[in-house]
Amino acid sequence: MTAPQSLDPALRRIAAEVEAALGDLLPTVEGGEARLCEAMRYATLGGGKRMRAFLVMETAALFSVDRHCAARVAAAVEMIHAYSLIHDDLPAMDDDDMRRGKPSCHRAFDEATAILAGDALQARAFEVLAEPDTHSNAEARIELVQALAHAIGARGMCGGQMIDMLGNRQDLAAEAIARMQALKTGRLIQFSAEAGAMLGRAPLHQRNQLAAYGRDLGAAFQIADDVLDVTATAAEIGKTAGKDIAQGKATLVAVWGVDRARAQAEALATQAAEHLETFGEDANLLRDLAQYVVSRKS
Amino acid sequence: MTAPQSLDPALRRIAAEVEAALGDLLPTVEGGEARLCEAMRYATLGGGKRMRAFLVMETAALFSVDRHCAARVAAAVEMIHAYSLIHDDLPAMDDDDMRRGKPSCHRAFDEATAILAGDALQARAFEVLAEPDTHSNAEARIELVQALAHAIGARGMCGGQMIDMLGNRQDLAAEAIARMQALKTGRLIQFSAEAGAMLGRAPLHQRNQLAAYGRDLGAAFQIADDVLDVTATAAEIGKTAGKDIAQGKATLVAVWGVDRARAQAEALATQAAEHLETFGEDANLLRDLAQYVVSRKS
Repeated sequence: MTAPQSLDPALRRIAAEVEAALGDLLPTVEGGEARLCEAMRYATLGGGKRMRAFLVMETAALFSVDRHCAARVAAAVEMIHAYSLIHDDLPAMDDDDMRRGKPSCHRAFDEATAILAGDALQARAFEVLAEPDTHSNAEARIELVQALAHAIGARGMCGGQMIDMLGNRQDLAAEAIARMQALKTGRLIQFSAEAGAMLGRAPLHQRNQLAAYGRDLGAAFQIADDVLDVTATAAEIGKTAGKDIAQGKATLVAVWGVDRARAQAEALATQAAEHLETFGEDANLLRDLAQYVVSRKS
Repeated sequence: MTAPQSLDPALRRIAAEVEAALGDLLPTVEGGEARLCEAMRYATLGGGKRMRAFLVMETAALFSVDRHCAARVAAAVEMIHAYSLIHDDLPAMDDDDMRRGKPSCHRAFDEATAILAGDALQARAFEVLAEPDTHSNAEARIELVQALAHAIGARGMCGGQMIDMLGNRQDLAAEAIARMQALKTGRLIQFSAEAGAMLGRAPLHQRNQLAAYGRDLGAAFQIADDVLDVTATAAEIGKTAGKDIAQGKATLVAVWGVDRARAQAEALATQAAEHLETFGEDANLLRDLAQYVVSRKS
């Protein structure tokens, strides 16, 4: 962990908070479908940096949103993230045996169970957002549902993964790679940063600023991730290293080289922080996060 | 088509209506993700009896719901149904090469594209429900989202499919098979029958009657489907016939035999129609549908 002193305990505290919320919100392991529930819990609990959850919790705090409500939205986002990792790891997709330092879901269970666990996690995430406990105002809840659905659909996360899969056989230019990454990982990160504004019923200009922050942060994060794929070991990042290159995947590191990619990630992180000006010192942890995502070693 | 004279044109008209809505609501085929959009359209358009869409449209008509709004919900339900068929047909699941008389999605495209098409269809269905065009009242839209999410999650459709997959290796009793089928196909059919009441902001007792109708109809439908799997040809049902037996799947036909299963399906269909008493003649087509699902030959 290379997070700044103030960020580190905040990340840990929020990870613990969202872990507790996930434990409550994921289905209990019982009935004939127990194996499915077990796989959902296996793939979602006990792992990950919870960066998306952190974004939800910290942007919600800017508007003094009830922490219990924010934690439900954070948990929903982490369910979506977990589902996307389960499906991305499948043999027909990236064929990854390791995830978060343990066997990926289809290796720990089987392919059918992994497909269904991802499917059921997506449904549960929307159910959690829709339940009255998430916000007393139905308008706020439906806004969250609509924005999340858009972020993860054909013009969002799924579309990005499709382009990434095709990228194996295509020579993408830097611009096309950036769009692919904006869809594949950027949209959900942007949603997470906007979620606090939606929960807080914030004015549009503030929501837009958080959206811009999330967009730049997501781009910086993804480039930094691709740099780590080249420079880190599997033990450090908890998943198979060097896969992008081995699979001939399109990344900006492949186009630009490590040094230029790293410089670009840092510029994006700086730009992300600049969108937060209106929030003053309240947004310091969000600023620290932007620096952290490009300086982390795992 | 063995539908009664009055039902047949109504089924065709609604199938055409929902086909048009789906055409508008599914993503256009463009961008680097064009292949994904194409697969979503391939698997959703131009096929199926649209029974779930019919249930939404006809129950909505009981409460004079705007047809345009009802068609959006019907389209969302058909997207969910199409996604479930795509994923069920995958090699890791039921491994089916044919669906609705044409190659299944992973055969026409590839496994990765099929997995993503199912995922993106689920997201799009929730997005459609959440969009303001579906209902002017956010409470109605969030109620639809919550009910659908519950119907298709770990304690619904996905849970049922999990039990069905495990059923290959288990000797399930009739009661356990009935629960599996209630989850796997029943919950979504029940949601479709309840959706009209949700759109119409109907009193709870009316919603409950439609839920009971949907529950019995779904059970009758599934038993009739299992009977057809044994008695019909692939050309008639547009998918591989005899698969349940070949895969050693748990069905009530295997437990009871064809005659008793058929009698039970007919009893359930009669019971389904009895829940509609309060709606008088307005519900005649829904009554006809209950008879149709147990008398159809395909």
